[in-house]
Amino acid sequence: MKTINVGLLGCGTVGTGVAKILIENRDLIFSRVGAFLNLKYVADVDLKTNRGIQFDDGVFISDAFKVVDDPDVDIIIEMIGGDGVAKDLILKAIYNRKPIVTANKALLAVHGNAIFRAAMEHDVDLAFEACVGGCMPIIKSLRESLAGNHIKSMAGILNGTCNYILSRSTNDGSSFKDVLKEAQEKGFAEADPTLDVEGIDTAHKLAILTSLAYGMEINFNDIYIEGISNITPLDIELAGQFGYRIKLLAITKNAGDAVEARVHPTMIPFSNPLSGVSGVLNAVTISGDAIGDMMLYGYGAGMMPTASAVVGDVIDLARNLLSGSTGRVPLLAYQMENIKRIPVLSMENIREHYYFRFSVLDQPGVLSKISGILGDYGISLKSVHQKGRKMFGAVPIVMLTHLAKEADVQNALTDISNLDVVSARPVLIRIENESEED
Amino acid sequence: MKTINVGLLGCGTVGTGVAKILIENRDLIFSRVGAFLNLKYVADVDLKTNRGIQFDDGVFISDAFKVVDDPDVDIIIEMIGGDGVAKDLILKAIYNRKPIVTANKALLAVHGNAIFRAAMEHDVDLAFEACVGGCMPIIKSLRESLAGNHIKSMAGILNGTCNYILSRSTNDGSSFKDVLKEAQEKGFAEADPTLDVEGIDTAHKLAILTSLAYGMEINFNDIYIEGISNITPLDIELAGQFGYRIKLLAITKNAGDAVEARVHPTMIPFSNPLSGVSGVLNAVTISGDAIGDMMLYGYGAGMMPTASAVVGDVIDLARNLLSGSTGRVPLLAYQMENIKRIPVLSMENIREHYYFRFSVLDQPGVLSKISGILGDYGISLKSVHQKGRKMFGAVPIVMLTHLAKEADVQNALTDISNLDVVSARPVLIRIENESEED
Repeated sequence: MKTINVGLLGCGTVGTGVAKILIENRDLIFSRVGAFLNLKYVADVDLKTNRGIQFDDGVFISDAFKVVDDPDVDIIIEMIGGDGVAKDLILKAIYNRKPIVTANKALLAVHGNAIFRAAMEHDVDLAFEACVGGCMPIIKSLRESLAGNHIKSMAGILNGTCNYILSRSTNDGSSFKDVLKEAQEKGFAEADPTLDVEGIDTAHKLAILTSLAYGMEINFNDIYIEGISNITPLDIELAGQFGYRIKLLAITKNAGDAVEARVHPTMIPFSNPLSGVSGVLNAVTISGDAIGDMMLYGYGAGMMPTASAVVGDVIDLARNLLSGSTGRVPLLAYQMENIKRIPVLSMENIREHYYFRFSVLDQPGVLSKISGILGDYGISLKSVHQKGRKMFGAVPIVMLTHLAKEADVQNALTDISNLDVVSARPVLIRIENESEED
Repeated sequence: MKTINVGLLGCGTVGTGVAKILIENRDLIFSRVGAFLNLKYVADVDLKTNRGIQFDDGVFISDAFKVVDDPDVDIIIEMIGGDGVAKDLILKAIYNRKPIVTANKALLAVHGNAIFRAAMEHDVDLAFEACVGGCMPIIKSLRESLAGNHIKSMAGILNGTCNYILSRSTNDGSSFKDVLKEAQEKGFAEADPTLDVEGIDTAHKLAILTSLAYGMEINFNDIYIEGISNITPLDIELAGQFGYRIKLLAITKNAGDAVEARVHPTMIPFSNPLSGVSGVLNAVTISGDAIGDMMLYGYGAGMMPTASAVVGDVIDLARNLLSGSTGRVPLLAYQMENIKRIPVLSMENIREHYYFRFSVLDQPGVLSKISGILGDYGISLKSVHQKGRKMFGAVPIVMLTHLAKEADVQNALTDISNLDVVSARPVLIRIENESEED
């Protein structure tokens, strides 16, 4: 009876879920893999918390390095997170030629190039499906199922906390602050929510996806990132009136010699299936030259969905060990020698449709001044609306544009901000998936 | 420079798409796989049709058996379809120990057990992602990504023709006959639409998915099949008023010692993401003990999406050849010795929510007679509506039930049909995903 020994490093929420699946579904996994995945070690510094699992004697230990150095351990699962000891353990496992499964997107987004290079040089498999989109097989799709496609673009809702907050605001008009506070109380949001609500977690995930899609080095630093903390119920309501929902999207597009890679609140039409993804759910649409459009949709976070992705990876690596096929699929979807440094298009060069909301004094000639400046920058308007209530003496004017260049838009908004009749910084929200092509 | 020689049998619509991808994306595939996939032969009896591809001399031939017997051919792609020569060629390829990719769901649904057994006994890989859901990686998800999950249930929209017809009826009230005729003129539906509109194609796909999910022999014969030809615009409209859309669903559920496997028109609430899948798109929801719910969504048919799935499979098999890992993933998701004969629950034993529409004469006491019979069979009503116009002297009465047993429902409807005041066979549509649990 073949046995593959697995060492789990870190037994927090997801780690506990992984242990549960490996133990409770042990026979099921055997019936599929033809070998037992034996949880030989679980290493965590917290020896006290009751995780609801009865481990055999000697399985639960505090020293993760002992696991990585044990010659009997066949596969390492890193669930510690962060870029401290987790990085050291992953590198140690690579040097010891043990295949690794991780969900550590922050680490891979920032230090991935060095880690993947080390893994490839040591002929070690490193699997990371759980880094992006929880249980959805987005990494496997990009590395395997869609390998015959030129990927044209992707758009994803990749952070459950942000999507929960925006969905709540959409449904009942609550403010960002109120929903965040409630989400923190319910445990849906971290005490320090910065990583989530400022779009950084989403950008970590986008950095990984962009690399896999186009065969480029991971480049987190050049991704444009804008979070959801400035999104108001008023803009959500107005978006709805125009037929859009506001989502925090990770967007990447093949732009020829460069790629677009950006994270920002985005208006998408109701007809886009991403607009219907609500609550803590995640989804990714992928556009390729053969597939047309495809969407994956599921729980992007949480104990068991993420643990499912981790165990799927462990099974993949176990199958590589059993069939002697380490390195069967290149880690970053392309053969190492074909991974290029492709530049990320600077934000000022992207072209988008835009939603502007201006708070202006109720005086004659205001509209003419604003539209005059927009016209000077070559920004063409699709529609103009004076909507909503007068607030603090100011009237909101909303404009939707045809395709425009971000640099022109930013310059125009700066000029408009300087007008005496404009009483607050204009609101800008980008619109994706507009049907017009101009 | 490594080269894998590929032989394509059948160059119809999807076959032509496969050839296009292999030729046009040749360098892209090389950059991912690290070997060239060389289209050495394309075999088709139709040598005349211009397929818009310039093949090298000697590539396009008429004799498919020559391809299967050529020792230089490494991978066979069977795109002929049907259970005649296609079956002979697949078996010949298996005996010649050549890995095979096929999209032939009708063949696998009916003859799959023998074919897969032959492939396993000869240690040959047989890939079939393109059989179900076009470009969506449903087979790969079940065999790999979700291998740590007990699959609880699946529901899928798996036939683009049916979904197009139902979507059109939903949008503009057209009748089944009119939309079918238009779809045939546009080329969305076959001249003989029976396989599609009567649910048989959907059942072929469900037979394959059910086997992969639960580790059971493929069992097409015991699947309950009901098509969409009797669905009227009136029932679609009434469904919409109650908050449901009607879709042709493939449904399978783990029922302990048995499984449910059935294809029929189904009402699903607007809150179910499948309800928003319209036109020729396909989608599958999968429920597992770890993932919760997940959905795959994309083009389930058509030249290039299906060809994308075929090429993804070819790449998978090429990677197995390059890394010497044939049989790395068991063909039917479970090790051969763990594939059992699990019975399909007979339809009379399923429990569902139901929509009934009765055409009754406008006389006192009718409602009491109908509800009396339903009560006698223990069928509990959730709501009763007298809706819609009087038609041909009859009034429609609509009832929605709590959970009821199919056998009781069928017996009750037979008794009700025999009432003098009932002027037509009652309409029955099953409802999935009702929120109540009783």
